[in-house]
Amino acid sequence: MSGTFYTVGLGPGDPELLTLKAARVIAAAPVVAFFAKRGRVGHARTIAGPQIGKAAEELRFEYEFTTEVALDDPRYRREIDAFYEVCASRLASRLEAGSDVALLCEGDPFLYGSAMYLFDRLGSRFASEVIPGVSGMSGCWTRARLPMTHGDDVLTVLPGTLDEDRLAERLASCDAAVIMKVGHNLPKICAALRRAGLHERAIYVERGTMERERIVPVGELNGDKAPYFSLVLVPGRQRVR
Amino acid sequence: MSGTFYTVGLGPGDPELLTLKAARVIAAAPVVAFFAKRGRVGHARTIAGPQIGKAAEELRFEYEFTTEVALDDPRYRREIDAFYEVCASRLASRLEAGSDVALLCEGDPFLYGSAMYLFDRLGSRFASEVIPGVSGMSGCWTRARLPMTHGDDVLTVLPGTLDEDRLAERLASCDAAVIMKVGHNLPKICAALRRAGLHERAIYVERGTMERERIVPVGELNGDKAPYFSLVLVPGRQRVR
Repeated sequence: MSGTFYTVGLGPGDPELLTLKAARVIAAAPVVAFFAKRGRVGHARTIAGPQIGKAAEELRFEYEFTTEVALDDPRYRREIDAFYEVCASRLASRLEAGSDVALLCEGDPFLYGSAMYLFDRLGSRFASEVIPGVSGMSGCWTRARLPMTHGDDVLTVLPGTLDEDRLAERLASCDAAVIMKVGHNLPKICAALRRAGLHERAIYVERGTMERERIVPVGELNGDKAPYFSLVLVPGRQRVR
Repeated sequence: MSGTFYTVGLGPGDPELLTLKAARVIAAAPVVAFFAKRGRVGHARTIAGPQIGKAAEELRFEYEFTTEVALDDPRYRREIDAFYEVCASRLASRLEAGSDVALLCEGDPFLYGSAMYLFDRLGSRFASEVIPGVSGMSGCWTRARLPMTHGDDVLTVLPGTLDEDRLAERLASCDAAVIMKVGHNLPKICAALRRAGLHERAIYVERGTMERERIVPVGELNGDKAPYFSLVLVPGRQRVR
């Protein structure tokens, strides 16, 4: 009998923001898999570390790149697809051998999580369950002490990889907004915020809930470089006080 | 010395989807406060029940109404403001006496959470901390096995309390969407989805992660009544397979 494929959300970074269920499933898993950048411990591995069983087999999937190659570059598509195929077949071999597998995923798995690409390939082929996590944006807006949406505010979640025109257009029609995947897109995001008249209201959060967390108004950024784990928050109308 | 005011996200409903941090803070709190409908145990109380200390004082805040009175009705505004003022002063008295207080909140506190209205009143008056939770929408889309946003999909979160024109207009321009606060707004929401051409793609989730959970395509709803804890999901472009 095949094992069960668990896709496990880990929350925004603070290991204490794991759910009770995630902690239980990780601790019981004979195989724990996670993505990591070359040469790094891996962010997911760090968050889940305290829960992983001593006898567990760990499968480490090393990314070649994250935001350095444009999403619409055919090379990106081809290489990342090949990469996910390899990861999926490594997981499938353990599942076929009867082992349960816990695939770790920062934040919430189904909100821009890389784990989705493996769930897309394996979720219906094996018994599977997805465990939601506290999203990165929730971790950041609580740390920034920014109630985001009151009453009938609309919240728009935008990837920072969109071009400046689309960002500015979306921002101009929003109540509350979150811009994810900031990294090297920060100058473009600041320009779009300025065009939408939201530059004064926006807050930048870097490494929310983690060590070296940094929370500053976007207006005070001065050509700063943003790490991948950063986002921009525009709180809603704050109508009700 | 005054106590600390904790606003604690409880996740979407399954008590095992509490974070380790929420469980720790609730267990240690001498005062635990929560909202409930008249005559009910209270949804938040039910989720957090296993964590609440036996000696804890429980403060129960009873709502008169939830979605029955329109948000733009002046009576709603007046009555709900008076209600929150009373709740805030009950919490303030415990905090001033030196007790820590844990205010429970379903989902994530800063995403349409009622707890925001007390945080708005007390968050800067006392030492305070907000603990993020797994959002209701994350709980629902994982249970529905719907990866929501791939690549540069935009996610729009809409309150079902918006009028049909605004809903239809927003839906027409979205990649992925979540419609919250469904309840008696369901017929209007279905009409807006039809106008935006999303009726076939939308999934209705009732009591996600809880007992009597129900997940069905919107197209199969037949004049059904929706409870307050229900939402509609429109997955993104699913471009990458």
